[in-house]
Amino acid sequence: MADRDVLDVPALTATLDGKYAEVRALVRSNLAAHAGILEDQRTLPRDEFRERVLEVVQEMAATGQTGFGFPAEYGGGGDVGASVAAFETLALGDLSVVVKVGVQFGLFGGAILQLGTRPHHEAYLDDLIHGRLLGCFAMTESGHGSNVQALGTTATYDAGTGEFVLDTPDDRARKDYIGNAARHASHAVVFAQLVVGEESHGVHAFVVRIRDDRGEPAPGVRIEDCGPKIGLNGVDNGRLWFDSVRVARTDLLDRYAAVTEDGRYTSGIENANRRFFTMLGTLVQGRVCVGGAAVNASKVALAIAVEYAQRRRQFGNPGSGTEEVLLDYGMHQRRLFPLLARTYALHFAQERVAADLHAAFSDIEEEGAAELARRALESRAAGTKALGTWHASRTIQECREACGGAGYLSVNRFDALRADTDVFTTFEGDNTILMQLVAKGLLTDYKDSFEDLDQIGLVRFVASTAVETVLERTNARSVLERLRDVVPVGGRTAEEVPDLLDSRYQLELLTWREEHLLASLARRLKSGIDAGTDPAEVFSRCQDHVIGAAHAHVERIVLEAFLDKLATVEAGPNRDALKLLCDLSALSGVEADRGWFLEHGRLSGARAKAVTAQVNELGRRLRPLAQQLVDAFGIPREMLRTELLEFSGS
Amino acid sequence: MADRDVLDVPALTATLDGKYAEVRALVRSNLAAHAGILEDQRTLPRDEFRERVLEVVQEMAATGQTGFGFPAEYGGGGDVGASVAAFETLALGDLSVVVKVGVQFGLFGGAILQLGTRPHHEAYLDDLIHGRLLGCFAMTESGHGSNVQALGTTATYDAGTGEFVLDTPDDRARKDYIGNAARHASHAVVFAQLVVGEESHGVHAFVVRIRDDRGEPAPGVRIEDCGPKIGLNGVDNGRLWFDSVRVARTDLLDRYAAVTEDGRYTSGIENANRRFFTMLGTLVQGRVCVGGAAVNASKVALAIAVEYAQRRRQFGNPGSGTEEVLLDYGMHQRRLFPLLARTYALHFAQERVAADLHAAFSDIEEEGAAELARRALESRAAGTKALGTWHASRTIQECREACGGAGYLSVNRFDALRADTDVFTTFEGDNTILMQLVAKGLLTDYKDSFEDLDQIGLVRFVASTAVETVLERTNARSVLERLRDVVPVGGRTAEEVPDLLDSRYQLELLTWREEHLLASLARRLKSGIDAGTDPAEVFSRCQDHVIGAAHAHVERIVLEAFLDKLATVEAGPNRDALKLLCDLSALSGVEADRGWFLEHGRLSGARAKAVTAQVNELGRRLRPLAQQLVDAFGIPREMLRTELLEFSGS
Repeated sequence: MADRDVLDVPALTATLDGKYAEVRALVRSNLAAHAGILEDQRTLPRDEFRERVLEVVQEMAATGQTGFGFPAEYGGGGDVGASVAAFETLALGDLSVVVKVGVQFGLFGGAILQLGTRPHHEAYLDDLIHGRLLGCFAMTESGHGSNVQALGTTATYDAGTGEFVLDTPDDRARKDYIGNAARHASHAVVFAQLVVGEESHGVHAFVVRIRDDRGEPAPGVRIEDCGPKIGLNGVDNGRLWFDSVRVARTDLLDRYAAVTEDGRYTSGIENANRRFFTMLGTLVQGRVCVGGAAVNASKVALAIAVEYAQRRRQFGNPGSGTEEVLLDYGMHQRRLFPLLARTYALHFAQERVAADLHAAFSDIEEEGAAELARRALESRAAGTKALGTWHASRTIQECREACGGAGYLSVNRFDALRADTDVFTTFEGDNTILMQLVAKGLLTDYKDSFEDLDQIGLVRFVASTAVETVLERTNARSVLERLRDVVPVGGRTAEEVPDLLDSRYQLELLTWREEHLLASLARRLKSGIDAGTDPAEVFSRCQDHVIGAAHAHVERIVLEAFLDKLATVEAGPNRDALKLLCDLSALSGVEADRGWFLEHGRLSGARAKAVTAQVNELGRRLRPLAQQLVDAFGIPREMLRTELLEFSGS
Repeated sequence: MADRDVLDVPALTATLDGKYAEVRALVRSNLAAHAGILEDQRTLPRDEFRERVLEVVQEMAATGQTGFGFPAEYGGGGDVGASVAAFETLALGDLSVVVKVGVQFGLFGGAILQLGTRPHHEAYLDDLIHGRLLGCFAMTESGHGSNVQALGTTATYDAGTGEFVLDTPDDRARKDYIGNAARHASHAVVFAQLVVGEESHGVHAFVVRIRDDRGEPAPGVRIEDCGPKIGLNGVDNGRLWFDSVRVARTDLLDRYAAVTEDGRYTSGIENANRRFFTMLGTLVQGRVCVGGAAVNASKVALAIAVEYAQRRRQFGNPGSGTEEVLLDYGMHQRRLFPLLARTYALHFAQERVAADLHAAFSDIEEEGAAELARRALESRAAGTKALGTWHASRTIQECREACGGAGYLSVNRFDALRADTDVFTTFEGDNTILMQLVAKGLLTDYKDSFEDLDQIGLVRFVASTAVETVLERTNARSVLERLRDVVPVGGRTAEEVPDLLDSRYQLELLTWREEHLLASLARRLKSGIDAGTDPAEVFSRCQDHVIGAAHAHVERIVLEAFLDKLATVEAGPNRDALKLLCDLSALSGVEADRGWFLEHGRLSGARAKAVTAQVNELGRRLRPLAQQLVDAFGIPREMLRTELLEFSGS
């Protein structure tokens, strides 16, 4: 296929790379230099591969690549945004390396930086940034999973010796799935219920030595290997038990709370619940990073599948007698192009959440004023992490299938890509739970804006929701349609059929869905509670609605991020291509949920069919640009491995 | 969880096992006896695991388990249906064993049985049934994939010596992905273009010795290992090249065509195209078997996920202070129960296609009359294979995620289950291509029934499609609704709202969708052709419509098979449970495609919402039965492995 080169690929790469092009270039060069790890992943026994991954991580650390997020005074780069960009880009390569970096620098390092104070920073940061001190992040327990507030591990203050005593009361409270714990970490940040005297103060974090200088478990610490996993076998996940393990009073990471020598608990945050969520909030960077890594893993899969589909011929064209290339088939375009468009969309949504993270964490000393922004950030990070990781699972699988049997051979990248990314939907917050977190935030926001409404606004609001309720109950869709004839919808009358490629119209659709889902969810929850139903039962019954509302919200902010980016790109073929991708991402999303839009009278049948036709048409327009659009991801050629492309034997 | 035992589980197992309960019991007992293979799969190096899989296959063969499909005179069981039942049941265990069995007995053995004649049967069947002669099935080539008719390998008749000379002209024509070829097979059934004199007669099959007695490649044969794969690493897939490899004239499998000593080509089937598809049609058993294996692999995943979700507690019930079990969450029910219901539905659809296969192949000598039935069988086998294998991929993945991090540990079965089944959507016919085959058959049927219509029927038919076309074009949904008021729909007036749980209504919906999609597809194809568009372009543009029509057809026959089965079950709690599963399978299918039903005015918005509410309600009703419903699958406990269930620490 000699498609015309209509796009300026380097310029498109620059648009994607954004502010941190240099950081990304450094990581790409490190990836290419360590490309052998992809072969090691397939061929080395597990123990050797774990050591190899550690070596690569330490060699990359030596280039400064993993230290961007730490203060300059400890040898870091002092730039949170750069740290996210580096991490994301690393995900074009082996993902055990990525996760090992995340555990060591993001979780372990991040906890010391964010939950600790100057003495901890001085004691640990320089060594950990340079990979001399290896640590792990011991939060999750076997019996509690995502419910961190219910952890069983205890840290009891012994005023006699001025120490905390850590204990694992039972097997449900063993620390589980802890990366770096089975083999490499000498230290752990351990989350435990802090008990002073008779009183429990909730979950706090402690620095605990878990291995001695010879690498043996420290006294009272038991360590077990979690064993082989579906993927990420270069990361040594382990389980930890503590039996009367004593640590100094100063080993409590005391940014938000401390215990005085004589056993008095003090905290700048009175409310225990708020304190807990403030501590957890500092960990938002991990979610932002995982979301970005997922998007970049998707790019690798798409780059391989698109190139394969341009080379691989299958079945005859009855006209010409030659076999057609796969990418000329409508169904193949349908399989790959909406995912390609969505990958661009999520890339820009990721750029936005990373920028928000950077802004929120750039001055870690400033509190209070930043708190609201941080809450919004947490919600955004949860939402983009969930959508990004679901997207990666789906995209990598679809790309594997689109490469047929060739995609099933381990020599090609899909094996490792799908196995390694599979757990992304589960770790750093299970996606289903993260989406509930998003929804919870939205309901609070909703209540806030409701309270802020003036009298007229309030009446209008209630009236409009009441009308909708009636419409839905009576199925009088025709009433809604008649209303449309006279009531302006989004500034238009119903006679002016809006252009499907009008971005404002697309945004209007997504916004309408979000608001409608939230309003109706609020009503359902309220009426359940009002009727005296057990709140757990109300929640269980509405859970799909809760998650649907969160989805709708995140979809809308993903589209907004793409539109914001579009507005910054100069007119020309590159912008036209990005607009095409933006349309395809938005409309394929509307198409996928057209049942809902039809059900709620927001799309007519003919309109819904027009959306499907437009998605097909956009695919045909995208066809000649496809190779350049994946080239623009700037994936080092070594990361694609070319066996499968040769296999296609074009 | 002490749920009441409302079901008679042994009776339900008997309903599922059907006619071949004894065969299934034999396989279950063989599985339990070889349960160690699940551990070997995780721990042995690849080469050793391959040998271990071969041992297990041979030990199972010794019990008669793998020979049911062969004539009794050669030591087989003479019962095709039993052979499918045995194969399916085997899929509760390690899937490399399953695929190795499929290659040796189904593909290699099946080709000799179906394409060969008595001399071939006498020469090979006894040895191959008992695992003394190992063979492979060399059809697929690297450059052609699913397009078998375009194979490049040639078999040229040399009248001087009375031999065929096999050649691989280029790397696109190398045989690829051939199971049993890399290590174990001494013989191969090779598909090649038969050339006699100057004339090519299309693809035929030959028995070729590929290894000598010492296991070295035979003269002129080159063999390469395909290397590690995502899964199924107990199967030795390889590539084959032939360089002037000579085989006797009688090594042509000559049931449908032969070459005389003096080089004259003869065949009972004149038309070359028809001959080709007749030969391929004999391979339908492989598809039936793979579909059944996929359904059974899904059962294993569901049994683990359901039991886990009944033990695992997560987050507090604000009322009681205890954590709730996962399966009490509405979202968790939504994740698992429609898949459970669908697994039952596909089980019965599989039972039906296996029975059709049995009927069609029970007397392999009879031709002609059975051909129509065989064509219908091929279509049904293609459709259920595609739906079953897609279902397995989706179900296993969803179950893995529903078990969170525990599901990611290799010690539990999801790792192997998902990796091994992943290629099921691709092999024995890529699903996308199979669905096109289904659609093609339907369009032919459609044309047939059109021609059979009488004058009045014809007028009615054209008028009704014309009305629909107008409706769709003008989006006058309200017109349709008004029409409904006066026109009986399925024997009711619009005022009588049919019960969603009325099976006839569900079937009516699925039938209406199928007919509508077919009629509109026929019109689109016709009008594209009439307009002079390149047929390849017409096809490419309609490809999603083609596959949608096939989907709708298979969905309908799946529901019919379930309803047929229901009619045979005695009234009581078991039948009530099966009816519940049938409703849930049908309605969750309607819900998933409600966009289409709404778009085409076949469901109103309120009705579509009622479907969603009913799916949730059915999930709540299913909740107390869930454990018994997976127990009824009769999976040997050893196949579930209990590590994950212990991990849940309830």
